Amino acid sequence: MRTLIIDTLTKIGEKITVSGWINTRRDHGKIVFFDLRDRTGLLQIVIGPALAGGIRVEDVVSIVGTVSARPEKLINPKLATGSVELQAEAVTILSKSAELPFDMGQPQLEVELPTLLDNRSLTLRHPTSRAIFTVQAELAEAFRQSARSIGCTEIFPPTISASATEGGTEVLPIDYFGHSAFLVQSPQLYKQMLAGVFERVFVVTHIYRAEPSVTTRHLVESIQLDCEISFIDNFSDLLDAMETVYCQTIKQTQEKCTQQLELLGVAQSLVTNKVPRLRMREAQQIIFERTKVDHRTEPDLMPEDEREICLWAKELHQSDLVTITHFPTKKRAFYSLPDPENPEVSLSYDLLYKGLEISSGAQRVHNYQQLLDIMTSRGLNPDNFAMYLQSFKYGMPPHGGFSFGLERATMKLLDLDNIRKASLYPRDLERVDFRFSDSSK
Amino acid sequence: MRTLIIDTLTKIGEKITVSGWINTRRDHGKIVFFDLRDRTGLLQIVIGPALAGGIRVEDVVSIVGTVSARPEKLINPKLATGSVELQAEAVTILSKSAELPFDMGQPQLEVELPTLLDNRSLTLRHPTSRAIFTVQAELAEAFRQSARSIGCTEIFPPTISASATEGGTEVLPIDYFGHSAFLVQSPQLYKQMLAGVFERVFVVTHIYRAEPSVTTRHLVESIQLDCEISFIDNFSDLLDAMETVYCQTIKQTQEKCTQQLELLGVAQSLVTNKVPRLRMREAQQIIFERTKVDHRTEPDLMPEDEREICLWAKELHQSDLVTITHFPTKKRAFYSLPDPENPEVSLSYDLLYKGLEISSGAQRVHNYQQLLDIMTSRGLNPDNFAMYLQSFKYGMPPHGGFSFGLERATMKLLDLDNIRKASLYPRDLERVDFRFSDSSK
Repeated sequence: MRTLIIDTLTKIGEKITVSGWINTRRDHGKIVFFDLRDRTGLLQIVIGPALAGGIRVEDVVSIVGTVSARPEKLINPKLATGSVELQAEAVTILSKSAELPFDMGQPQLEVELPTLLDNRSLTLRHPTSRAIFTVQAELAEAFRQSARSIGCTEIFPPTISASATEGGTEVLPIDYFGHSAFLVQSPQLYKQMLAGVFERVFVVTHIYRAEPSVTTRHLVESIQLDCEISFIDNFSDLLDAMETVYCQTIKQTQEKCTQQLELLGVAQSLVTNKVPRLRMREAQQIIFERTKVDHRTEPDLMPEDEREICLWAKELHQSDLVTITHFPTKKRAFYSLPDPENPEVSLSYDLLYKGLEISSGAQRVHNYQQLLDIMTSRGLNPDNFAMYLQSFKYGMPPHGGFSFGLERATMKLLDLDNIRKASLYPRDLERVDFRFSDSSK
Repeated sequence: MRTLIIDTLTKIGEKITVSGWINTRRDHGKIVFFDLRDRTGLLQIVIGPALAGGIRVEDVVSIVGTVSARPEKLINPKLATGSVELQAEAVTILSKSAELPFDMGQPQLEVELPTLLDNRSLTLRHPTSRAIFTVQAELAEAFRQSARSIGCTEIFPPTISASATEGGTEVLPIDYFGHSAFLVQSPQLYKQMLAGVFERVFVVTHIYRAEPSVTTRHLVESIQLDCEISFIDNFSDLLDAMETVYCQTIKQTQEKCTQQLELLGVAQSLVTNKVPRLRMREAQQIIFERTKVDHRTEPDLMPEDEREICLWAKELHQSDLVTITHFPTKKRAFYSLPDPENPEVSLSYDLLYKGLEISSGAQRVHNYQQLLDIMTSRGLNPDNFAMYLQSFKYGMPPHGGFSFGLERATMKLLDLDNIRKASLYPRDLERVDFRFSDSSK
């Protein structure tokens, strides 16, 4: 019967079996120390050289031994189990490891990004890598819980679509039994259709964008978390729901993952109960006054504007989040609702987090004829959107929604310098597990 | 401020606003009755002909009115809100509907499957359709909760892969920046790699199988729910974990969805604490004794065998589930562990539910050299599996796992006659939202 490492603290004097990977091995003549690693932590093993034999790092073992308290002066305060160790009496090797290509035993994994990814099945085992994905799992779960708390039903829409729906970024084509089909760039159209069925829906799903360039913040395949809610009274209703979901998601993740944040040396994000809101033009005015750089006639915020207005929010509102609204209608997707008071701008928003957009959304056009007119004026063929338009033909309530990328949110929450570090097996222009060589074309 | 329909029960005498779709309209001369539908149910609206005007079925409206108790003899016991009604005083039309192509107001939606799917954005609104997907959402959530209860971490592996990994069923190719890539047929290899990182993992993800024929139980795109657990002591450990997860998932779903099961006229599944287990050869012997049909030398169970052994489990063990183990090694995927006591059979299983396989899995090969040998003997090129093999090269614990399709589980739980009814927007050989015409080739 296996004892998990974290449970050894309550087993002093008992003979137990622990199982895991050899994280480090230190030979001191007549005595050998292992740090054994399982999913709950590390445990110091004290073992004789004969018993330790040729066991090496990353070997998978089961060890029978007796738990003992460490002498006061040998307690390791950096380790959750630092007050105990195991006196090994028998070892079973479950699986041997080859020699590692680099040292995995340091507190930080000091390898370059290509090495990190070329050896992904190995490097993910490092405690700092595992911490990133423990936080990511909690982000997804916290999102689901907060989406449910505002009445959303979970949906499972398809990722294969018959038409390239949104334009803008590139799509990935697939050969579908000889028909042309595409991988969706977002669950946008399906979540709207299903908001016409369940009123409020959420989805955690895969999206695909054939980004033609390599950046630190884009992936070809990523996980998107989406909500769409119907029967909103106005744009404010939507922003309230959106900010509630994001604030709850970030707060809950930080609360559940204090250990991981500490291990990664990341400060808690500032999440207030009231996210500051600015219209895009107001944000540009504030930036102009702060920096004397005049972007007041630009049709969108530039990356440096996003960073500057986040500094403003942090300084003046103690908030790492800021909501920017009313982007020009022509800069947003066809389904964004033009502001009835000024159709040049749309009831759209971006949520910025530590200097970068992590979420965008809008109130949507819900009137069938208005939607047809907008599509036609943008050169879209309504026939290609027949299933989507069916929802509007048969009565669609006022609605709107929001979405964010799981990897980007993980990256920003943890101050990572590249989104690839927030994706288990990242897909980009150059890599599907391994970097493409010309011969793989 | 909108009141949800289910909350009208506690608002007798109050003036409120309700919003939703007109589910039915009945004109009785000087008085008109609407059934208004929102996500919480149906409510009878009493309204004058002038106010009712040209409002028709599926129009989206907000109605201001006063809630009144219905006279005893007019109480409708079939409706959750059958003891109240709303006396309408004002109506706002939020969105008009076109005339419906068929009647949506009956308790059962009497349309053929192609009509159901051609009008999917509309037909999903019917209460019986919504009930199916409420159950589906609960199945996924119950699975996550029970996977977490056995210590699994949620993972988000990719769906784009560089090699067609499993063979057998057909793969969907994609054009990946000029490189050849495929959509995964299962998260199998990635969940194993990640069981080498987190020990125990679960995933809810999209899978793709280019099924070349149209059947009632296969889809091209579906949702798969997977677990993989490390440091199992033996095959029994794995079966215990698998049966725990499935029994908890089905039980919790049935408990939370009693209303939906009632609406759909479905009996609760028989889920016992002890799922009967048989080796494949034992099952064939029992079937032979029961039916005199001799399949005792067949290398697999046939569909009629699955049905017969499920009858046996129900009759003798009061169980709608039965676990069949030890299928011939050559009939299972390369990563299935041959039984050390008899390598001709593998430590694999199928879980049968009401006559159909809903889950399969196995203990896996975890020894690097054994895995290489098996791959080579099956004609697989280890170079195509380099990232997968990396996990084994650097120490992989004994492990195994299980998986099931969300749509198939929904279909069986609800006794649906076609898996397409358990998929929001099903993808098959003939259809992506709409049935392909030759011109779409």
